[in-house]
Amino acid sequence: MDKRASGVEDPFLSGSELSKNENQKRLLRVLRGEILDPPPVWLMRQAGRYLDEYREVRAQAGGFLDLCYNPELACEVTLQPIRRFGFDAAILFSDILVVPHALGQKVWFEEGHGPRLDPLRGVQDLATLDPGRMEERLQPVFATVSLLRRSLPPETSLIGFAGAPWTVASYMIEGGSTRDFFKAKRWAYSDPQGFSQLIELLVDATSGYLLAQIEAGAEAIQIFDSWAGVWPEAEFRRWCLAPAREIIERVKTVHPEVPIILFPRGAGPLYADVAAQAGADALSLDTTVPLQWAAETLQPKVALQGNLDPAVLLVGGKAQAEAVERILSTLGQGPFVFNLGHGIDKHTPPDNVTRLVEQIRAWRR
Amino acid sequence: MDKRASGVEDPFLSGSELSKNENQKRLLRVLRGEILDPPPVWLMRQAGRYLDEYREVRAQAGGFLDLCYNPELACEVTLQPIRRFGFDAAILFSDILVVPHALGQKVWFEEGHGPRLDPLRGVQDLATLDPGRMEERLQPVFATVSLLRRSLPPETSLIGFAGAPWTVASYMIEGGSTRDFFKAKRWAYSDPQGFSQLIELLVDATSGYLLAQIEAGAEAIQIFDSWAGVWPEAEFRRWCLAPAREIIERVKTVHPEVPIILFPRGAGPLYADVAAQAGADALSLDTTVPLQWAAETLQPKVALQGNLDPAVLLVGGKAQAEAVERILSTLGQGPFVFNLGHGIDKHTPPDNVTRLVEQIRAWRR
Repeated sequence: MDKRASGVEDPFLSGSELSKNENQKRLLRVLRGEILDPPPVWLMRQAGRYLDEYREVRAQAGGFLDLCYNPELACEVTLQPIRRFGFDAAILFSDILVVPHALGQKVWFEEGHGPRLDPLRGVQDLATLDPGRMEERLQPVFATVSLLRRSLPPETSLIGFAGAPWTVASYMIEGGSTRDFFKAKRWAYSDPQGFSQLIELLVDATSGYLLAQIEAGAEAIQIFDSWAGVWPEAEFRRWCLAPAREIIERVKTVHPEVPIILFPRGAGPLYADVAAQAGADALSLDTTVPLQWAAETLQPKVALQGNLDPAVLLVGGKAQAEAVERILSTLGQGPFVFNLGHGIDKHTPPDNVTRLVEQIRAWRR
Repeated sequence: MDKRASGVEDPFLSGSELSKNENQKRLLRVLRGEILDPPPVWLMRQAGRYLDEYREVRAQAGGFLDLCYNPELACEVTLQPIRRFGFDAAILFSDILVVPHALGQKVWFEEGHGPRLDPLRGVQDLATLDPGRMEERLQPVFATVSLLRRSLPPETSLIGFAGAPWTVASYMIEGGSTRDFFKAKRWAYSDPQGFSQLIELLVDATSGYLLAQIEAGAEAIQIFDSWAGVWPEAEFRRWCLAPAREIIERVKTVHPEVPIILFPRGAGPLYADVAAQAGADALSLDTTVPLQWAAETLQPKVALQGNLDPAVLLVGGKAQAEAVERILSTLGQGPFVFNLGHGIDKHTPPDNVTRLVEQIRAWRR
């Protein structure tokens, strides 16, 4: 079918703002409101341990942060899944914790233990952070972005990203992964003024970081609020929604042409408020978001991305094909980017990803 | 204020079904649709390690399961928070994993590690379960219920409970706690027929277990689907909503007078479908459920219970008072039971619970 004709159906599309070159990139077209048939596809954490070729590079790189800060190797692992699967978008290989690291916090990765940080204990520790040196310390990331922009196939969009302030703050305070978020919540509940200083510092840092990624060549942005789903409504609005809106506004003021995807994982019914209020071009849906509800409630306001259960990719076969079809047949009727509801797991058979991409590419509305 | 007069406002109340004695129990009145002012209050895991007197009994009991199966001691720890705080309801002290244990699965608790089970590996392991001996093995639990019913103050309701089939199945397959539920999901996705045999076995076992608790004296029932929030919509409907509806129907067929609270933790927008379809009298809301949305979408159909963040009880003071007031002022306008959004944490200062109960008891619409 004629894809331009498909785009014409969409009321969001402001065609005059689009250059011809950008118009050819399918991810960007959808993020600007077009309905594409079939939809573009990429997967969160698509560059990762489920790929032999990733594990080989990872083994040469030294530590995980060494890989993030090595432009040649970070570029190489970013390109690997593009070569193998032909995804419509590449996402910069990096980690949300390079921001606290660049702010001067001690961050390290232990095999099998996830990230570790020397935790902030309260507002008095904010003085140990040094936003002034952040941009300098993150130069290798920007170099990776530039290198990627020159290396990617012309049809592949380059996504830059950052963690949202709450999610990054939770790691900075907890010192790593947590199930209950009690240290971070305790600070936020007992000293909301001090905690808001940390969140504002991260709004500043994240806005600057994303703008620098765009200057280096990122064509779209995703903001990951991976732990948005642990707050009551009032705190979700204050610590997740408002900071995201502020970052999006600051980035859009300078680069209104760059679409922004927000991933408020676990927001539940509050996805509706995020769609209406955050100012994002697209929302990434976690696995639990009901499809018809999302199509009716969210998709009239924003493009949607998601939300295949990463566990179904472990199994493949009929279960995978049915789950993919369910998503395509509902969300594919509007502006939609196929993705997972969470990062791909390291035990995923790459052949299941091949089947996934084949099924999506063969699909028509 | 005259509580009978308050009850008259409510269209749900079928007064003729209520005996005079039951009518005096505030929890049961709300679960049948009355709006009470102030609302009744109890806390999930209110008998637990945050209380010195619990830790003393726990130390004498031997293992955790020994405590669950000792009617005198289980009764004592159930009564402790009633004596200290005067909650409107006591919940049987037990664990959702007594069901797999009574089915013959090996279950044990290691200090600091949570529950451990010798995991089911697939449909071939279902033959190792022996539902025929379950009721006999659970006699000590029913003895606890009977003892509690004789021991509780006349105004205090006695809640029996069980885990929902999916949540219990997840422990039976994973062999303990998990972050990703990949083993259980892998089974469900790759062998839905075999997995549904396990779910149906648990529907049978759970229905019988709850009916036996009612026969022993439980006046209300709560079904905990603590891990409902990890599935896509289709699987949520199949493995969480449908089994809960089946259990509720079976219990209601025999004991229509016993109200049932369902806690589909993390159901997000699907709380609306649960309210409309499960047949529960009340839904317990997790911490993330937005208050106004719940009042408008759910409370016209069912009584609500919840949903204070357990983390705010660690902090107390102004943060706690404000969070409590927000919940009371929205959900307190309809049939409502004050509770947490998740179990109370072991580090909670008991004085914060005292303040909580004082604030609720002083509140008026």
